[in-house]
Amino acid sequence: MKRDCNILIAGGDMRQIYCARKLGGEMNTALIGFDEELLPVDMSGWTADTSQKRFYDCVVLPVVPLDANGLLSTPCSSSELRPEYIREMLRDDGIILAGKCDERLRSMFPEHEIEEYLTREELSLRNAVPTAEGAVQIALEELPVTLNGLRVLIVGMGRIGTALTAVLKGFGADITVAVRNETGAAKARIAGVRAVRTERAGADYDLVFNTVPGLVFDRERLSKFSPDTLFIDLASKPGGVDFEAARELGIGVIWALGLPGKTAPVTAGEMIAETVTAMIAERGRGE
Amino acid sequence: MKRDCNILIAGGDMRQIYCARKLGGEMNTALIGFDEELLPVDMSGWTADTSQKRFYDCVVLPVVPLDANGLLSTPCSSSELRPEYIREMLRDDGIILAGKCDERLRSMFPEHEIEEYLTREELSLRNAVPTAEGAVQIALEELPVTLNGLRVLIVGMGRIGTALTAVLKGFGADITVAVRNETGAAKARIAGVRAVRTERAGADYDLVFNTVPGLVFDRERLSKFSPDTLFIDLASKPGGVDFEAARELGIGVIWALGLPGKTAPVTAGEMIAETVTAMIAERGRGE
Amino acid sequence: MKRDCNILIAGGDMRQIYCARKLGGEMNTALIGFDEELLPVDMSGWTADTSQKRFYDCVVLPVVPLDANGLLSTPCSSSELRPEYIREMLRDDGIILAGKCDERLRSMFPEHEIEEYLTREELSLRNAVPTAEGAVQIALEELPVTLNGLRVLIVGMGRIGTALTAVLKGFGADITVAVRNETGAAKARIAGVRAVRTERAGADYDLVFNTVPGLVFDRERLSKFSPDTLFIDLASKPGGVDFEAARELGIGVIWALGLPGKTAPVTAGEMIAETVTAMIAERGRGE
Amino acid sequence: MKRDCNILIAGGDMRQIYCARKLGGEMNTALIGFDEELLPVDMSGWTADTSQKRFYDCVVLPVVPLDANGLLSTPCSSSELRPEYIREMLRDDGIILAGKCDERLRSMFPEHEIEEYLTREELSLRNAVPTAEGAVQIALEELPVTLNGLRVLIVGMGRIGTALTAVLKGFGADITVAVRNETGAAKARIAGVRAVRTERAGADYDLVFNTVPGLVFDRERLSKFSPDTLFIDLASKPGGVDFEAARELGIGVIWALGLPGKTAPVTAGEMIAETVTAMIAERGRGE
Repeated sequence: MKRDCNILIAGGDMRQIYCARKLGGEMNTALIGFDEELLPVDMSGWTADTSQKRFYDCVVLPVVPLDANGLLSTPCSSSELRPEYIREMLRDDGIILAGKCDERLRSMFPEHEIEEYLTREELSLRNAVPTAEGAVQIALEELPVTLNGLRVLIVGMGRIGTALTAVLKGFGADITVAVRNETGAAKARIAGVRAVRTERAGADYDLVFNTVPGLVFDRERLSKFSPDTLFIDLASKPGGVDFEAARELGIGVIWALGLPGKTAPVTAGEMIAETVTAMIAERGRGE
Repeated sequence: MKRDCNILIAGGDMRQIYCARKLGGEMNTALIGFDEELLPVDMSGWTADTSQKRFYDCVVLPVVPLDANGLLSTPCSSSELRPEYIREMLRDDGIILAGKCDERLRSMFPEHEIEEYLTREELSLRNAVPTAEGAVQIALEELPVTLNGLRVLIVGMGRIGTALTAVLKGFGADITVAVRNETGAAKARIAGVRAVRTERAGADYDLVFNTVPGLVFDRERLSKFSPDTLFIDLASKPGGVDFEAARELGIGVIWALGLPGKTAPVTAGEMIAETVTAMIAERGRGE
Repeated sequence: MKRDCNILIAGGDMRQIYCARKLGGEMNTALIGFDEELLPVDMSGWTADTSQKRFYDCVVLPVVPLDANGLLSTPCSSSELRPEYIREMLRDDGIILAGKCDERLRSMFPEHEIEEYLTREELSLRNAVPTAEGAVQIALEELPVTLNGLRVLIVGMGRIGTALTAVLKGFGADITVAVRNETGAAKARIAGVRAVRTERAGADYDLVFNTVPGLVFDRERLSKFSPDTLFIDLASKPGGVDFEAARELGIGVIWALGLPGKTAPVTAGEMIAETVTAMIAERGRGE
Repeated sequence: MKRDCNILIAGGDMRQIYCARKLGGEMNTALIGFDEELLPVDMSGWTADTSQKRFYDCVVLPVVPLDANGLLSTPCSSSELRPEYIREMLRDDGIILAGKCDERLRSMFPEHEIEEYLTREELSLRNAVPTAEGAVQIALEELPVTLNGLRVLIVGMGRIGTALTAVLKGFGADITVAVRNETGAAKARIAGVRAVRTERAGADYDLVFNTVPGLVFDRERLSKFSPDTLFIDLASKPGGVDFEAARELGIGVIWALGLPGKTAPVTAGEMIAETVTAMIAERGRGE
């Protein structure tokens, strides 16, 4: 028996489709902002009826809700998703869940509460897994050598650094983790790998994963690396590598963002669905 | 060159001796509350001269500072260590570092600031390693079977649970982790082991490690386990197992406290020394 | 100082180029059967001078020396590599090394000894690493879910099965190994994963790696698997899956052969070079 | 239903008792050479009736059948176990299984076939697990430091070296494996640890496990190690360490033999039982 809660998945990438499918098992779920032909066969007919005004209890916006132009992000649709559609379909006491929220988004929905789901601890923790797997996939694809025996530097021992370490240990890579403080060093030691302070990490590596937002590898530092080194930057916003300098130095850098949605959209979508379900339950909806 | 800081290690177990030795490499270090014959040969003569009044910048008390009688803990000494000795040797602006601090301890040193070192994140994190190793040592000693293939339940996926999981995976144990919430489950999945909610963990295990303070295994729950199951309880204070009920049911329980000091006093002592050094540096002492 | 040994790399894929580069550090090395423009810049001019008759001490043929038409395999050349070229360039007492050797190959070089390098234990063992990495790369690329938590069946606990198990454990996959006998089961247990007899392995898996040559998955058996299961077949010659039946059942199968040369040609080539060096040294050449 | 085979466990350590218990689930099993009070309660009455002449189809002798005096080994009995007892109780076509067999043993039973069970591949492989666990237990007990971060040398990458590597990796030890050839190096790399040729292994280690029979650590070599290094020698017969020289140099050496029977007698006994069952089945007995 489905719970008495109407939920609308509005825009986003493939993840949101699989999020919808998972939510559909428990709640009345519809989609908007996706071209019908991109939906799996078993989800045909899930597209929302826009004439149902004030119907939805909850709208789920994308992980990164707005695109570069400040519009609602709809990479799976050929048409724009206008905020007023959503406002009209949402109940007066309906809530909006978005991966992250900023002022621009808040101003689109001035009368509704917006909660972030990506900042929930369990989801950011779980997201580290597809991110690490996607990063390793890139390394496997790009490098003409095995990861086994490769000298790898992982910058940062947070969630993603920890997940990467576990995966790369399985490959038998020769791992060093660059950490900021004693806590990071302790985490590296527990994981059974070498720890070094970031500022003293050296340049003798074949592969570098950066997980720290903030310029870790500036021109001077990059110049000490061999041009054969591959950098995979997983840090959001500014990234941790001076891309300009790297290009001039002939060093390969791949700035890999949004990996969960690319490499494991089903898993990533289902994780969002589980977090959304928990957030709705906490608010007493759909009981 | 040694830093200009006089430090006094006052009481505690073997860990504090190795802490002193490590600190002695950088600072002027003395001991009180240890019988001379227990000290390693190279530390002979390190016992403090009690006539040096108002001399020490810093006193390091034990991890668990007070014993069951409310006295300063001195398991390595045949005589009592009286608080007034320490008060007299400490400078007026001297600081006291203790593993943990409570009202009783505070009332012994009303004029000095007391800071806790055991609650520092890097030390509690690092302490998880000797705790996990000591717990596994107990299991190896107690069980007539291999850990390889053994059905093990680890209750709690905090620092100790995480460290235990890593070690036991190396043995090829069949590990289930009992967790409280989705965050714990995510940690277990990242570690590559099964997660189950604590209340639904079942009883089909050969070995159970509890790391959660609070009664997890009450009589009713224990009665579902085979008498062959071994429980190793690593939780402080009340412990997580109803010891009385376990005895009546013929189930073996080992309540293992203070493992770092028992199984790896050198490592544990050196870790304390490093944290003490960091705390002194942060306060601008000994620069 | 280079050893006094002239060596000719004749045909093969990218691996042989990197094999040549590595050998070039120690011996006088030339290439034949590669288009000049495919060679790395630093190897320009390494193409053999075919007018040097009876010059080479050793010829290295490809891992799989003959193509489907029974000709010397030259995927990196637009022209044919005729056996008589090689015969003329080789010294009378020169030796031929080939990955594998059969009657057809032997009849091309009736006057020279041919030794196999792929059957050397250290090389077949080391080749398991790029094979396992390449297989995991395929799984990462094909599956829309994470390997973490995935139910994986590995058929066979030989070199490749063992290497795959180690890598997949790092991902936190839920691994079962299908084995033929008690020795295989013991290897699985030591690796810390579940073992099951192949005939009783069941069908509840999301991903299956086959490493056993011989029809393991016939039509009847395949019909028990979900169409969502992905099969990656690493077994040579006939393969272990009834491909015809799989297609009819809508089950995805990827038959992945020659992975070392595709996913890690540099590592694979250098491994060949090290084995070739050892074989030459054992024969007292180039000392 | 039990199989129609009468089996007699004759002498040996605790392992043989658990071997008997396991066999007793499938076959008619009795014991000789064990004092009744050492048997578990549920095995009371399992002692063989020596008046049953020519009754047993199979006799299982200990893993190491003869003691230092050349008598049948009966560490769990206060009286001698004379060969003639066994000869009389065994059927004319009965077989004898012994861990290992030599001329002395063969001359005790001139009319019966003796087969070795310890040399069976699956058993020697499986025995590596309790050996590795026992060796690690000794290290945990002896060392005042954590295995995490410890510089460990494992000499030999055979069954025991491989099992040790897996366990010690879980502890986060800093592992180097000393190998004899390229095959051993390949195994180490696959396991994700450093490999070094035994003769160039150096002496910068805190802990050394030797698994190679033959004098690896002679006086000259030992003299380069710090007296703080702990050697745990797992090699049989002569051992791999010059014990005399080590003592003079003040280096601690523990020669640990027969670990499976000491640290995991239940697992070790059950493994013997499974191998014995397989050997009997192969001979068509008890079908």
